[in-house]
Amino acid sequence: MPRLVDHAERREQITDAARRVIGRAGLDAATFQAVAAEAGVSVRLVQYYFGNKDGLLAATHRAVVDASAARFGAGGAAPGTLPPPRDALRGVVAALLPLDAQRRADAVVLAAFHAAALTRDAAAREALLTAPRALVEVVAAQLDRARGAGTPGRGERDVETSRDAELFLATLAGLTQSVVAGHLEAEQALAVAERLLDHLFASQAGGPAPT
Amino acid sequence: MPRLVDHAERREQITDAARRVIGRAGLDAATFQAVAAEAGVSVRLVQYYFGNKDGLLAATHRAVVDASAARFGAGGAAPGTLPPPRDALRGVVAALLPLDAQRRADAVVLAAFHAAALTRDAAAREALLTAPRALVEVVAAQLDRARGAGTPGRGERDVETSRDAELFLATLAGLTQSVVAGHLEAEQALAVAERLLDHLFASQAGGPAPT
Repeated sequence: MPRLVDHAERREQITDAARRVIGRAGLDAATFQAVAAEAGVSVRLVQYYFGNKDGLLAATHRAVVDASAARFGAGGAAPGTLPPPRDALRGVVAALLPLDAQRRADAVVLAAFHAAALTRDAAAREALLTAPRALVEVVAAQLDRARGAGTPGRGERDVETSRDAELFLATLAGLTQSVVAGHLEAEQALAVAERLLDHLFASQAGGPAPT
Repeated sequence: MPRLVDHAERREQITDAARRVIGRAGLDAATFQAVAAEAGVSVRLVQYYFGNKDGLLAATHRAVVDASAARFGAGGAAPGTLPPPRDALRGVVAALLPLDAQRRADAVVLAAFHAAALTRDAAAREALLTAPRALVEVVAAQLDRARGAGTPGRGERDVETSRDAELFLATLAGLTQSVVAGHLEAEQALAVAERLLDHLFASQAGGPAPT
């Protein structure tokens, strides 16, 4: 079905252009005109695919989140093997910190959406909460494994483990902010994340932390 | 000198109005017209005090940072007494997390400036780096005290302590983002910060952590 493939590619070509425009000049710069020019297509085509500016921005946000999730998956272990919890969490760090130019640009895009959502309606804010909630769950599950807690039922998870998972998420969000703002180099941010893993695995109940 | 007092009050009246406008509707909404209307003054008066929009925004950013610093100072110990390091760091957490409506609005304002600076010139970014650098220094000094390291000279600080101070800053930034986005309640963010303090004081070289 070549026609469907063309549609998906065309949409991606346009959201890629929107990511570059937003990363360079902010959310308000992402007009239909600017994005169409960046993508090398007509304004009418952008309208055809995304309807209005909100539709374009929602699709662009989704593209950035999907790219994040894809990096996340690509860093995972081969099917059938489970990496040690600490390695799994290192993979999360590597997938989500802005360690290269593309991820840095995406982090700028996410910061723009975050700032915009804060001053918009509750629905815009709610849409930004799905990814962090899922991430906290992934992190807590790895900490449960490391601490020999198995797979606790809903509401049965140790309160310290839940707080450690939120601490992990907050640290990644803060380090991302520090790197894109130029307060830390990517390598320094990685070292700080590693230091957090030291703390989290020092307080586990079981044997020595895997390295 | 009643005239000078009037000037300072008038400027504060206008930056207070700008904080409300930005907290409600974002940085781009803070036009001279909107801010003048919110402050109940004329557009000409805003121009008289701040020149152009960049001047108004810079003064507003400064007002938010100063309010933060004032809360910081107000939470400190009486002159001549030094609180235990953990209490001092608790004071930093309480001063900086968005625990009430005013601080929440200020956090939204800072997120807007952060997002805008990312897509502007290096000078705009540089202006946002002063506060985090100073804060990391304050936190590292408290950790040095707790760990019996005295006051290390420049470049002599333990690398773990430097990373812990950056970890503290990143966590506060991430928790602030979580609270303003609605991912965490203020009370939950405080509990996560307390959990970080548990980790930081568990790994200190000296005796038991002060409570």
